[in-house]
Formats: sequence, structure tokens, C-alpha cells
Amino acid sequence: MVSSSCIFLTELESATFTDCRKITVFWCCLWEQEQESQPSALLRMLCMQTQLFQTLLPWQILRPSNSEGAGKVSLLKKVPALKDGDFTLAECTAILLYLSRKYNTPDHWYPSDIQKRAQVDEYLSWHHANIRANAPKTMWIKVLIPLFTGQPLPSEKLQEVMEGLSTSLKQFEERFLQDKAFIIGSEISLADLVAIVELMQPVGVGCDIFEDRPRLMEWRRRVEDAVGKELFFQAHEMILNIKELSNIQIDPQLKEHLAPVLMKMLK
Amino acid sequence: MVSSSCIFLTELESATFTDCRKITVFWCCLWEQEQESQPSALLRMLCMQTQLFQTLLPWQILRPSNSEGAGKVSLLKKVPALKDGDFTLAECTAILLYLSRKYNTPDHWYPSDIQKRAQVDEYLSWHHANIRANAPKTMWIKVLIPLFTGQPLPSEKLQEVMEGLSTSLKQFEERFLQDKAFIIGSEISLADLVAIVELMQPVGVGCDIFEDRPRLMEWRRRVEDAVGKELFFQAHEMILNIKELSNIQIDPQLKEHLAPVLMKMLK
Repeated sequence: MVSSSCIFLTELESATFTDCRKITVFWCCLWEQEQESQPSALLRMLCMQTQLFQTLLPWQILRPSNSEGAGKVSLLKKVPALKDGDFTLAECTAILLYLSRKYNTPDHWYPSDIQKRAQVDEYLSWHHANIRANAPKTMWIKVLIPLFTGQPLPSEKLQEVMEGLSTSLKQFEERFLQDKAFIIGSEISLADLVAIVELMQPVGVGCDIFEDRPRLMEWRRRVEDAVGKELFFQAHEMILNIKELSNIQIDPQLKEHLAPVLMKMLK
Repeated sequence: MVSSSCIFLTELESATFTDCRKITVFWCCLWEQEQESQPSALLRMLCMQTQLFQTLLPWQILRPSNSEGAGKVSLLKKVPALKDGDFTLAECTAILLYLSRKYNTPDHWYPSDIQKRAQVDEYLSWHHANIRANAPKTMWIKVLIPLFTGQPLPSEKLQEVMEGLSTSLKQFEERFLQDKAFIIGSEISLADLVAIVELMQPVGVGCDIFEDRPRLMEWRRRVEDAVGKELFFQAHEMILNIKELSNIQIDPQLKEHLAPVLMKMLK
């Protein structure tokens, strides 16, 4: 049976909390392949880039097979989730900030300078109703909804989402990037990571938003270099190959359950 | 002429930056009355409650009369906005965090304990796609859209939004509040302030979400007490009297400009 935990994770594998002295970061298992969602890709990039993986336990893959462990890992029943002893945490940006503080990641990720830090916060807040609200919808429209409903969506739906995304990208370039190398200046920060993982979703489904935007493209190249190209493409492997999912068979019960949920999320 | 800067502020009054040693917080002018939007109410509560008003210049009211100053105050052309010397900042939560750090507000607002701080971050992140994505729509549907289009919206639209809000409130009670006095425990934090200002919007337009939710109501009372009842109701004066706006006359040009924008935001 093909399982999905990409968007809603209502049942998690009973997790083995044998070593509570160490932090566990839970990510999600997309389909049968043990591939990660975009927020999990984001965490992977930070942890690998800063060598946090050496401190953390190997990330725990969660599968929807046992409801016992769900509430224990994340009160919001969402992944990625973090467990540090008895302390649990959901929401990707909260986890990123927690890891940055706990492990004193290099200053540029979340600068101690309060004005630069405020610029990261400003982007993280703006991101939700703009980039985050638009970019992932391209994946739902082009891949996930057709996969679960068996029907492609009318092209106007994609056009509408692309228009919204275009407006957000204009603001992103003019207000946040301007002529800087990265969002807050000459060094990469969490804001750039949060932005890039969402913006790779349209790319993965064939809507290359970087194509006609040279300033955005140059920024992407700088982010790739700062993260490390190998790690960057490793973290985005799933999203850049997501079209392959179009051919897999989905369990009919899961289809019935998820199709209306996905349609509602797109409204 | 009635002006609106409640949602989009494309033109700001040329601001007088005569004293750049001090911080200026810009809020918005709603209609002819110099009343504030909910994010501005949020900032007012923090600043008044922590006596930051004594440090800050009187808040500058911005009116849509001169486009000159727009980019200077906020690159996102949105209010509330903050100006601290040459440094400008938009996005309400980023401003709140900046003020907390700069003026060392009492620890409970954004605790130095990294796990408690992470809980504030977790709520602030979850808030966007849940409470913030639903609660303000009640005001658009019941007051703003009819005011600008001259037509009430079908009741199904409100019902749909209330269903979404109800799901978010269930999560808010079960996952965030639980049996605690406030979101992160026994003391009020920025997370409670961010939540309450959005949740007062449905109340102002006659959808009392607290009525049948005793746990939520008790939390609201505790927030009122912690902020101070007088300040709480002063900050929410505009939203609790927003129905009075239904009778005012709107400039036809402004109507023409804003009606489609509001409709699009509701989609």
C-alpha cells in the first residue's frame, strides 16, 4: 500500500524513544520511497551544512501505520517534528530556530545583530501569506490532485496560482532581494533557505519560475553554492523527480480520504 | 473623502523624520477616524503594557495622500511599520520581536528559555495558515466587502470561513492551550497577543467564537487581565465598533479600486 504523509500526518509509526538524551528530528516518508517533503529538505540542509547531523540521532522516518506514537512526537501531528528529551516541537521554522539556538550555528544563519535578525523575522513572517501560500499549490495542481482524483484540474486554476506567485516573486525581488546577494545582505540566512525550498516546488512540476527572472536565478545559484551543490540537489531530489509519482497506483481508500482534503486546501 | 489603509497601503503620507534618534512606529489610519487596524492594536498593547510608549515617539498616523514617503517607511508599503534611524521594518511579528529585543521587555513576552521561546515560535508559525488565514475573513465578509461592493455576500461564504475557523480553534484549544493558563504555560507571551487580536475580529462583526467555548473564553479573560482591561478594550475599540462603518459613504474611485482586491483576497 502506498502511504502518504506529505501534507497531513494523522497516524505516525510508534516511535522508539530509547535515547532521550539526544534530539531526534522526525521527517516524513513520502509514498513508498523514503523521500522527504520540502520542509524536511529545509531541515536537512541546515543540519547537514552545519554538521548538526553528527550531534543528532539519524532522522526518524515516520510511516502512517500506528496511531499510538502520533501525539507523542508532535502535538500538531505534523512532520517534520523535533523531540528533545520530553520536549516536542512542530512547525519547520520553529525547529530551525530552536536548532540554531541550541547548537549555536554560525551567526549568519540567524544573526545576533538585532537589525539583521529582524530582517530574517520580517521575511519569515511575510513568507507565509505570499511564497508559502502560492508555490506549493503548483505541485498540488500538477501532480497530487490528479494523482488522487484521477482528473487533471482546468488550466485556469494553474494560471490563477501562477499569477499570485508572480506578484509575490515581484515583491520578493524588489523588496527583499533588491541588489543584495542574499535576503539580509552578503551572507546566507535561514530566510534564504525557507524561501528556496518552496520555490523549488514549481520547478519540480515544470513551472520554472527562475527562467525569466535573472535576478532570482542569480540568487538561487548563490544559495546553491552557499549550501553546497551536492547537498542542495540531494535535498531537492524528491521534488525535482516528483512527476515520476504520476504513474504509481494509490490505494483506493486513501484516494477517497485525501482527494476532498486536497481540493479544499486549494480553494 | 474616506481613505482606507486597512489592508493595502500603497501611498503613505510623507513622513517627518526629524528625530532619527528615536524609534517611530507607524500605524494605519482606518477611514476618516484615526483608528487602528488589528496588527496595530497588537503593537499598541505591547508598547503600552511595557511602557515602551515613553521611549518611542508618538506613533505616526499615516494617510494615503502622498506617495513620496511610502518606500521610506516600509519597503513592503504596509503598516504597521517601524523606523529606527535609517532602519525600517514591516511585518507585525517582526516588529514585536525587534521591540522586545531592543528594549528588553519582561522575559515572559519572549522567554530566554529556549524551549519556551520555541513554543512561542511554534505558535507564531502555525498562526499564519490557521487563525490568521480565517479570522479576518469574517470582517471582510460581514463589513468590508459589502461596504465596497454594495452587495452582501452569500451566507454560504461566511459559513465556509466559520467552518475553517472552527477547525483551527479546535486545534488551538487542544494543541496549544490544553490545560494551561496561556499558550506557553503560566505566563502571557507574544503568542497570546498575536492570537487574541485576530480572534477579536469575528467578535466585532457578530460571530462570537468565545460563546460556546468556555476554555477559550477563560483564556481570553486571562489575557484581558494580563494586558489590563482598560488597555485591552481601548486597543480593540475599532474592531468592536466596526459595524458602524457600514453606514459611511465611500469615494466611488476607491470603491472601484478596492472591491476586486478584497474579493480576490477572499478566494
